[in-house]
Amino acid sequence: MREFEVISRFFDRPSANSSWIRKGIGDDGAVLTPSPGFDTVVVTDTSVSGVHFTDEQAPDSVGYRSLAVNLSDIAAMGAEPKWVTLNLTLERSEPAWLEEFAKGFFRLADASNLTLVGGDTTKGPLCITATVGGEVQSGQGLYRSGAQVGDLIVVSGHLGGAAAALASGRTSVEDSLGHAFRYPVPRLNLGKSLCGIANSAIDISDGLLPDLQHILRESGGLGALIEADNIPLFDEACRAFGSERAIELALTGGDDYELCFTMAPSNLKIVLDLERACDVRLTSIGVVKESAGLEISGFKTGALPPTGYEHTW
Amino acid sequence: MREFEVISRFFDRPSANSSWIRKGIGDDGAVLTPSPGFDTVVVTDTSVSGVHFTDEQAPDSVGYRSLAVNLSDIAAMGAEPKWVTLNLTLERSEPAWLEEFAKGFFRLADASNLTLVGGDTTKGPLCITATVGGEVQSGQGLYRSGAQVGDLIVVSGHLGGAAAALASGRTSVEDSLGHAFRYPVPRLNLGKSLCGIANSAIDISDGLLPDLQHILRESGGLGALIEADNIPLFDEACRAFGSERAIELALTGGDDYELCFTMAPSNLKIVLDLERACDVRLTSIGVVKESAGLEISGFKTGALPPTGYEHTW
Repeated sequence: MREFEVISRFFDRPSANSSWIRKGIGDDGAVLTPSPGFDTVVVTDTSVSGVHFTDEQAPDSVGYRSLAVNLSDIAAMGAEPKWVTLNLTLERSEPAWLEEFAKGFFRLADASNLTLVGGDTTKGPLCITATVGGEVQSGQGLYRSGAQVGDLIVVSGHLGGAAAALASGRTSVEDSLGHAFRYPVPRLNLGKSLCGIANSAIDISDGLLPDLQHILRESGGLGALIEADNIPLFDEACRAFGSERAIELALTGGDDYELCFTMAPSNLKIVLDLERACDVRLTSIGVVKESAGLEISGFKTGALPPTGYEHTW
Repeated sequence: MREFEVISRFFDRPSANSSWIRKGIGDDGAVLTPSPGFDTVVVTDTSVSGVHFTDEQAPDSVGYRSLAVNLSDIAAMGAEPKWVTLNLTLERSEPAWLEEFAKGFFRLADASNLTLVGGDTTKGPLCITATVGGEVQSGQGLYRSGAQVGDLIVVSGHLGGAAAALASGRTSVEDSLGHAFRYPVPRLNLGKSLCGIANSAIDISDGLLPDLQHILRESGGLGALIEADNIPLFDEACRAFGSERAIELALTGGDDYELCFTMAPSNLKIVLDLERACDVRLTSIGVVKESAGLEISGFKTGALPPTGYEHTW
């Protein structure tokens, strides 16, 4: 199959007739009109075969997930996604694989009101980069920095599911752990709603501890006390591994794509309302402290690896 | 080496203190304030080891070129580059390689007033995606569509150099052909200057003929007459291959990263002034015709492959 055929057959869909897209797929670049009074938020993530997904993984999930990991970053910035570019490096061109990949990718794109405006198709070892542009009201974006002493630390959803799926080999889509790994739900509505309410936010991609540490470090070297018993876990992970190991997977496993944010305790009622409005569980798991360092009550941290997932060479 | 060390050591440089960058490297995403009255132009290109560059190629050139191919797209849209994200998938982390790669990348970024605002570093077969954002006055962007019957067809620089370098193995940087392959110069000043003057534009990445065909097709199925003798060639390519083969390489070789644009003949004087202002040779090589099809006078086209470079599987 030829490059232009791959694009036209699987990726160049009739445009959504959005007035802000002056030029979408099919020129040297996309031309987009920003909304007045809004900042542009740009995020990008690469998924590599054999590292971020396996050969056996359903291509629908590979397509969905390569976008979801980016949308999770958009959510963590408090932004609304608008456009995406997709760079697809393919070893082979298998129409069945491409069709399923595109199905997963566009299902999430459509659900997120996101338009594919460009990309690149090249030959080589399977590797996918998606770059997503979003918008947030000028000056209203959520950053990692900004946490305040006394802030509550809140996480969305349940943690450790994807890591438990990988650790147990339960990656089938019928399994709730497998589903968490394959189809993480970017918390876009929640992220947008947190602008002006949260003091800091990050998405949990590397693991709760290392991601929370980013917040603490970038907020001026603060610390935190986490209540291990409050961390929302998957029942299946507790049954499969026992709760201690399930907590460990939640703390350092990564691949959750939930949000972790901090906010003044006085905003608690607003956030509880958001739980209903955004249809996502929100759990306060601890508090930001002045003295640097992470304390986890109710859990032996001696056995914990110092960081979560990080590529090393 | 660890992922965060790669980023902090080679890519997270003190920011240029640009007021439009609210947040650069180091959060879940970059936050950028668009200029009022301007459209955002987004381009992206992936370079794969063994396909777009070789193992032996100097990493300085790999870094430079992975950005140059994107800036050439920005130039073809008539835009001014502003920000770039860099997705680097590395098999190994060799500090010497990374340092040289970053040197080439940032040399061109600095010369183009472009700021690295984010990216992703992953482990896997060597592959580089750069995504560049630029700005163009609202509604002033250059498209492939828009060519008019009677337009002159103009190209910048000399064509076929990179293809001749690859065909002859003369890829050393001391050789002018090798230099053309390794360090193509994106025609940013020219591209910007053509807004309101050119009717259509494209950058020559796949080869003059296939790229010109994009213009003709997207301008409503027009045709063109090209004067083969007018195509600006590299003297070294003519000496190495004879002029017929040198023309063939210019027509279909690709990797030139020069601009091809069309404009009303009445703009010829303006464009000749641009030649001096932008310090780049501009050559009128033909004219846009009403009847579809590409005619090349002074050259036997029978031997030409139908298209230029395209990935096939």
